[in-house]
Amino acid sequence: MTSDLSYFFDPKSVAIIGATDTPKFGYFQTNYLIKSGKFKIFPVHIKKETILGQKAYKNVKDIPDDVELSLVLVPMKNVLQVVLESIEKGVKGIIIESAGFSETGREEETQLQNKISKIAKDTGVRIIGPNCVGVTDVYTKFCTSGSDLSNAKTGNISIIAQSGVLGNIVIDWARGNGFGFNKVITLGNKVDVDEIDVIEYLETDERTKVIAVYLEGVKIGNETRFRNILSRVSKKKPIIVVKNGRSDIGSKAALSHTGSIAGNDIVYDALFKQIGVIRAENFYQLFDFARVFAAQPLPKGERIAVITTSGSLGILTCDEISRVGLKLAKLSDDTIEKLEKKAYPKFNWVSALRNPVDIGPAGPELMTFSIKQVLEDENVDALVQIIVIPEQVLNVSEEDPLSISREMFKMYTKQIAKFGLDKPKIISTFASPLLTSVVRSAGEAFNIPVISSMQQAVRCIKAMLEYRKYLDKNT
Amino acid sequence: MTSDLSYFFDPKSVAIIGATDTPKFGYFQTNYLIKSGKFKIFPVHIKKETILGQKAYKNVKDIPDDVELSLVLVPMKNVLQVVLESIEKGVKGIIIESAGFSETGREEETQLQNKISKIAKDTGVRIIGPNCVGVTDVYTKFCTSGSDLSNAKTGNISIIAQSGVLGNIVIDWARGNGFGFNKVITLGNKVDVDEIDVIEYLETDERTKVIAVYLEGVKIGNETRFRNILSRVSKKKPIIVVKNGRSDIGSKAALSHTGSIAGNDIVYDALFKQIGVIRAENFYQLFDFARVFAAQPLPKGERIAVITTSGSLGILTCDEISRVGLKLAKLSDDTIEKLEKKAYPKFNWVSALRNPVDIGPAGPELMTFSIKQVLEDENVDALVQIIVIPEQVLNVSEEDPLSISREMFKMYTKQIAKFGLDKPKIISTFASPLLTSVVRSAGEAFNIPVISSMQQAVRCIKAMLEYRKYLDKNT
Repeated sequence: MTSDLSYFFDPKSVAIIGATDTPKFGYFQTNYLIKSGKFKIFPVHIKKETILGQKAYKNVKDIPDDVELSLVLVPMKNVLQVVLESIEKGVKGIIIESAGFSETGREEETQLQNKISKIAKDTGVRIIGPNCVGVTDVYTKFCTSGSDLSNAKTGNISIIAQSGVLGNIVIDWARGNGFGFNKVITLGNKVDVDEIDVIEYLETDERTKVIAVYLEGVKIGNETRFRNILSRVSKKKPIIVVKNGRSDIGSKAALSHTGSIAGNDIVYDALFKQIGVIRAENFYQLFDFARVFAAQPLPKGERIAVITTSGSLGILTCDEISRVGLKLAKLSDDTIEKLEKKAYPKFNWVSALRNPVDIGPAGPELMTFSIKQVLEDENVDALVQIIVIPEQVLNVSEEDPLSISREMFKMYTKQIAKFGLDKPKIISTFASPLLTSVVRSAGEAFNIPVISSMQQAVRCIKAMLEYRKYLDKNT
Repeated sequence: MTSDLSYFFDPKSVAIIGATDTPKFGYFQTNYLIKSGKFKIFPVHIKKETILGQKAYKNVKDIPDDVELSLVLVPMKNVLQVVLESIEKGVKGIIIESAGFSETGREEETQLQNKISKIAKDTGVRIIGPNCVGVTDVYTKFCTSGSDLSNAKTGNISIIAQSGVLGNIVIDWARGNGFGFNKVITLGNKVDVDEIDVIEYLETDERTKVIAVYLEGVKIGNETRFRNILSRVSKKKPIIVVKNGRSDIGSKAALSHTGSIAGNDIVYDALFKQIGVIRAENFYQLFDFARVFAAQPLPKGERIAVITTSGSLGILTCDEISRVGLKLAKLSDDTIEKLEKKAYPKFNWVSALRNPVDIGPAGPELMTFSIKQVLEDENVDALVQIIVIPEQVLNVSEEDPLSISREMFKMYTKQIAKFGLDKPKIISTFASPLLTSVVRSAGEAFNIPVISSMQQAVRCIKAMLEYRKYLDKNT
């Protein structure tokens, strides 16, 4: 079996079986793929002559051209037949989005699913699904989830998810938060293609720098393959995993959801450590980790500097640094002297110029200066910068205050992006949703991740350091 | 010493000492208080004749009328003098926003602060600050932080914060997230009024249902008062606390920040449990807890029902339920039968009608029906409802899709707000920032808290149950 899955992400031609132009399941997928005009699409429908202005075929076998990929949207009871017809037609891959299989917990539907699984194994035709929304590729713009990719930003994170609805949300979420990604793959009930296959494919995908995975469990019999392949790939690219089913009740729910066995969580924990897989607690952490790993260098050590506009949040950050077992950097005398020289004559309110460096409500100039000094300090391995700015300070001018602050934050992040290129830096902001989005897009523009919670920012650095230690030992 | 601090929140007349009409520190405060037109304001400025169109006085003692409250915005070196003059004038309270005192770590400034502290004790004039932004009252619209309260929503949560900048952010954050509050009090270096005073005042404040506190430590000598008063108030109103300085390094930072001793964290942990104070891990959790406690009844037991549109997130929620020591409710046969009857004929994809009830991408009708049945089940003590809706489903219509979805979610939350009035229900949503804000404002409109992370939603219920158990034992 080949690990080349590229026809799923950039297919030469696609049959949409169950294509539809009425607003029901399948509509968004059909509409996007036909309207985008980027792919050779053949709609297949048992009755209709045309779909959204394009000639429709009664059967995939009626298509006069070669078909590389079948996208199956028909009701569950017709899926087996169209899979067989697609294989007769000579497709390389099939994506089955239709649901109603083993996840119902019913015998008949599970057997049907097993039949399809066997067909994939016997013929070598690769099948994704059922019960998923297939794939999204922001570079090629191929997308079977129904999302509109016209405004999606490209990036170097690829995401493997299980369920359909989650696959869509990932795309919405990334777009809404202004950050880019590369591919999203939803696997559903995994009759054939599973996480291991996709991870192996992404191993050599040049556009993927970080692999983020939502894992519901490894199927029995696949443990060795899982261990071998992930252990090999994790040495090249960070693999970050949210693993559900930590608890017994969670395991039972996972079993009924996609029919995979959640397994003993402690075993997974140990396994992940052994093979260098980074474990995230939840989806927010998964994305935060992925953002930071994709954008920033790994830290060389455990000494964290904190620069803050709020003393209170600085202290809470120190607590978290201590909790996760990192160290607060001790700034060199030289750095402190420089900071004092610059700050004291001007700001008699400067509260503390040790670490955390609490610069109070200072403007971007002292902020930029402080960050430069701190990042140049050889006693510092990483920086968490806490920006807490009340909305009122943006309202001094009568001109559009939002566009002024957008410009200001862009200039600011552009400058600080130049300092300490070999040290990870994270901005953490606590502000109104509006101001948070302003800071976030400024950060994204210059590859400085903006993480809402300072605790989460510290955990990102901890995860990076752990990964670095793993690499140092194992490569 | 009186515990009536009402003149800080609804003063009959206010002198702004250091009032200014140029964009520097003090401008926003002066501008808001004068422009709002709701209070009798006397600007005081050593040189200017008028400030923002209002007559200015050289000295607070020159004001021909009675002054109940002084708001002090002058530089640190002039603070002592204007405090003494204010007392001569006969004010009841003073808010000092000026910074540069003990938080600098310098001897001279600390001594100056101690002098002011002694004056308060000797005269009985209550002083808030220095190094803060004073108070905000959304009902009376009195606000010394410079925030504009014209659009702020009223609510029944009062917040006690330490630092100025944080006080402002709390207001921005609440407004941006569409939820209301009552008072925000920032205490700064606490020369006189401290958390204990404010908690005692809020004990009988009818508009305060929940007290949220950011605590940097209790001053030596105040331990017994802290214990007695909080233990009394917590039996009437939930007190939720973020306590910093958990770690040694955090403690040291706290010491330099506002000069209070952070103390041994384990001691605090034990104390909080003993006196019924609810501890939150960070600010996000503080606000989430506060929202849920303010809006929802306490659960009677530990059995949680989960209704979800995403199987994966349902499973992660189960994991969290197990992790925090709650139980997944076992739905009665009657409930399951009703759900099956309603759902099966219509949705052959229904995955699991046990708990979590995974209704997949169903519309509001099945959702509403399911919530009603589940909340009526006597085996259920609380509900977490997970809404994961891709943006695309909102785009079916050509009309303004956002306003349609706003209406839809409002109708939906209005309906479900009627079910299970004696059981807490929380909506958890994972969606684009846009859709999250739509769901959040719909929830807020009918007092159903919308919490972004499902794990956090479970922790809210856990905190409520702990509090209920405390009340059962201690009242």
